[in-house]
Amino acid sequence: MTLDTILRTADAQIDGAVSRLFDLLRIESISTDPAYEEPCRAAADWLVRELTELGFDASRRDTTGHPMVVAHHKADGPHILFYGHYDVQPVDPLDLWDKDPFHPALEDTPGGKVIRARGASDDKGQLMTFVEACRAWKAATGTLPGNITLLFEGEEESGSPSLIPFLKANAEELKADLALVCDTGMFDAETPAITTMLRGMAQEDFTITGPDRDLHSGMYGGPAINPIRVLTRILAGLHDDTGRITLPGFYDGVPDLPAEVQESWDALPFDAERFLGDVGLSEPAGEQGRSVLEQIWSRPTCDINGIWGGYTGAGFKTVLPSKASAKVSFRLVGEQDAAKIQQSFRDYITDSLPPDCSVEFRGGDPANATTLPIDAPEFAKARAALSDEWPNEAVFAGCGGSIPIVGHFRTYLETDSLLIGFGLDDDNIHSPNEKYSLTSYHKGIRSWIRVLDALTTS
Amino acid sequence: MTLDTILRTADAQIDGAVSRLFDLLRIESISTDPAYEEPCRAAADWLVRELTELGFDASRRDTTGHPMVVAHHKADGPHILFYGHYDVQPVDPLDLWDKDPFHPALEDTPGGKVIRARGASDDKGQLMTFVEACRAWKAATGTLPGNITLLFEGEEESGSPSLIPFLKANAEELKADLALVCDTGMFDAETPAITTMLRGMAQEDFTITGPDRDLHSGMYGGPAINPIRVLTRILAGLHDDTGRITLPGFYDGVPDLPAEVQESWDALPFDAERFLGDVGLSEPAGEQGRSVLEQIWSRPTCDINGIWGGYTGAGFKTVLPSKASAKVSFRLVGEQDAAKIQQSFRDYITDSLPPDCSVEFRGGDPANATTLPIDAPEFAKARAALSDEWPNEAVFAGCGGSIPIVGHFRTYLETDSLLIGFGLDDDNIHSPNEKYSLTSYHKGIRSWIRVLDALTTS
Repeated sequence: MTLDTILRTADAQIDGAVSRLFDLLRIESISTDPAYEEPCRAAADWLVRELTELGFDASRRDTTGHPMVVAHHKADGPHILFYGHYDVQPVDPLDLWDKDPFHPALEDTPGGKVIRARGASDDKGQLMTFVEACRAWKAATGTLPGNITLLFEGEEESGSPSLIPFLKANAEELKADLALVCDTGMFDAETPAITTMLRGMAQEDFTITGPDRDLHSGMYGGPAINPIRVLTRILAGLHDDTGRITLPGFYDGVPDLPAEVQESWDALPFDAERFLGDVGLSEPAGEQGRSVLEQIWSRPTCDINGIWGGYTGAGFKTVLPSKASAKVSFRLVGEQDAAKIQQSFRDYITDSLPPDCSVEFRGGDPANATTLPIDAPEFAKARAALSDEWPNEAVFAGCGGSIPIVGHFRTYLETDSLLIGFGLDDDNIHSPNEKYSLTSYHKGIRSWIRVLDALTTS
Repeated sequence: MTLDTILRTADAQIDGAVSRLFDLLRIESISTDPAYEEPCRAAADWLVRELTELGFDASRRDTTGHPMVVAHHKADGPHILFYGHYDVQPVDPLDLWDKDPFHPALEDTPGGKVIRARGASDDKGQLMTFVEACRAWKAATGTLPGNITLLFEGEEESGSPSLIPFLKANAEELKADLALVCDTGMFDAETPAITTMLRGMAQEDFTITGPDRDLHSGMYGGPAINPIRVLTRILAGLHDDTGRITLPGFYDGVPDLPAEVQESWDALPFDAERFLGDVGLSEPAGEQGRSVLEQIWSRPTCDINGIWGGYTGAGFKTVLPSKASAKVSFRLVGEQDAAKIQQSFRDYITDSLPPDCSVEFRGGDPANATTLPIDAPEFAKARAALSDEWPNEAVFAGCGGSIPIVGHFRTYLETDSLLIGFGLDDDNIHSPNEKYSLTSYHKGIRSWIRVLDALTTS
């Protein structure tokens, strides 16, 4: 049977597949920091070379930011668009890493072998599961699987400024019958997941200015407004005592969870205590009266991602700073309007400013939440294919993260997405010591082979 | 007349006095940052050389931190101890300086010539007014003025960790009939001041930890406690809506302003609008119902001097940080107990922590406020001497700042202090573009000659 042959080929090639992933992981493609422009380009070029060698018609497509990589294999059958991103999160605080984040290595852990490096899970390891599935397919059958386009982005971790213009400009080329997106996780190490609900996102980076220069608190402490004090008061007012967000209209469009989804989630073997315990916590800190799964999958949140102002070095400096800044993001669900919420947040800040204070906003692109059409036949085929590979049956899951690409594919390419990924909750993505389980990588490659087989040959 | 001769000598030497001050200002003696240990030692050595050349018995006295400089001139008459500090504040944010903070220069400004450099006013320019007064005295009379000891510290801007042990160990040597401290300001550019009330200080630098690592807000946003959110809530709770500080017992020992002091302050030509307008503000932000002078001179404050946590670089990173930190200081007055207030603040934070959060404290040494004995005869003599030099009569003033040395001199040397300084409100001390008016420097030198004459010869 051909499928078995391809799977065996993938097994035989796994050492090479790890080595190729390591090559990609060594490239410091941090997209959010302008200092890393060269490595981002190098990662794109590396992918173009790999894909060309595999027989794709691959090219680097420059943008005003980091380049896109697009690769085609024309064939009969449904057009499938695969998406991943080659850029990675910054690595600070670097001193919390046990090793250089850009020197990937295989490590033995109590949970099995893992690949340790920035981007191992998010998203280089994940995108390479698909590339290596194609490689095994080609090696076993002499051709690439079906009518495929690969699209790799280099700005996913920095708000994707070039994405929408690129999709608009290349819609005819990229439009597909189905998109496959590999940037999500398993339900647990033995249970694959197809993510069908994604939270949206509104982001704001802002600075409050009070006095027109830094002041000495001995001379001005008291009468001079302190922008850090203003900022803390504004941020502290974002949640009430029950953990609900106080912005007017914030919960407009937040749906009640359908009873059948609630029941299916209640039935999942999710251990909230362990989920929190894994990161040193014991009590859920979100909205009161909601389960932990609801808090991360179906409820909107407001997170302060960063704050800074005044003197932050060693020792003391009795300064009254001129400026204080913060980065705040909102995870959105259902029909919440991301742009309206961003405006509502700006209005709240502006209305909360005392006299003599001003604010400057540097917002990100708002993205609404997405729910995918789980009764489409492709979902059933993919679910069956994943269930064949893993110990447990695949589940339809929510996802706390925001993958704006799904909304953009729908809006600009009229293409729905199937979200399949092999990350685990303890992968430390966006944190020090990111890893990707070797099993995720190996069985991820095998999973795509099965999914491609299911989608293209029946 | 001898006094006139000495003053004329000082006038004749002013160019050299500026040049010598520039030499000292070029030394980057930032005490709070361990990277500047060498320049701090170099500043101490520079002073020892200057004072030795002037005929003082001067020496560098090493401590476990930055060294002290002590210089004696033995003579008959009352023993006078002069204090200043040769260390300076850090210079960040460096990009807000119009020139290198350690390349002093004379600049023409609408308010007259100024000396622009870090430490020009706080406190190198100020301490050099006294050294140059001694130089003129020696040049004009052949001897130094009276029975004087000079004590220069190198850790004033970093909490003075070595000071108390040094005073204790050398109390017999340093004990004096009167201390002169030059680290305060004028009332305005034409009105000298003797500062008679100093606010005390409690400082706390602390870190709140929630999750044991940085998390991805897409995965944990909602159920995982965010320490920045905890920190902002704690800091926002420090003041009520009227600007009063909410810590239990905080106002214990805060005296009502005596009616005669209140009257004398009301009579001062203090322009609150201009004081605030100079730094881009229009409305006093301190305790409601208190005048701006009360807010800076006689009322206690709580200031957030710095805050940091999470991602603070360019762009966005949807991190839920493990830690968030702040530096908070309290200016204290009257009989407020600085140690009790520090403990009360720690208790407030600890009691405010939600489950799964912990706090680590890195406090500074608490110092109580001081009121000086303004009816002692030395105060009248010094006031008359200052009034002779400047256009307006000298005033007895409060001071928003904390000069813990005054309390320490009283406690460890049983010596009261006369606080005379020539800084101006717009000197930008602790801020970018610090300056010292050339008039402050020149007439400061002349003022000390007059004060020394009044204290030692009548």
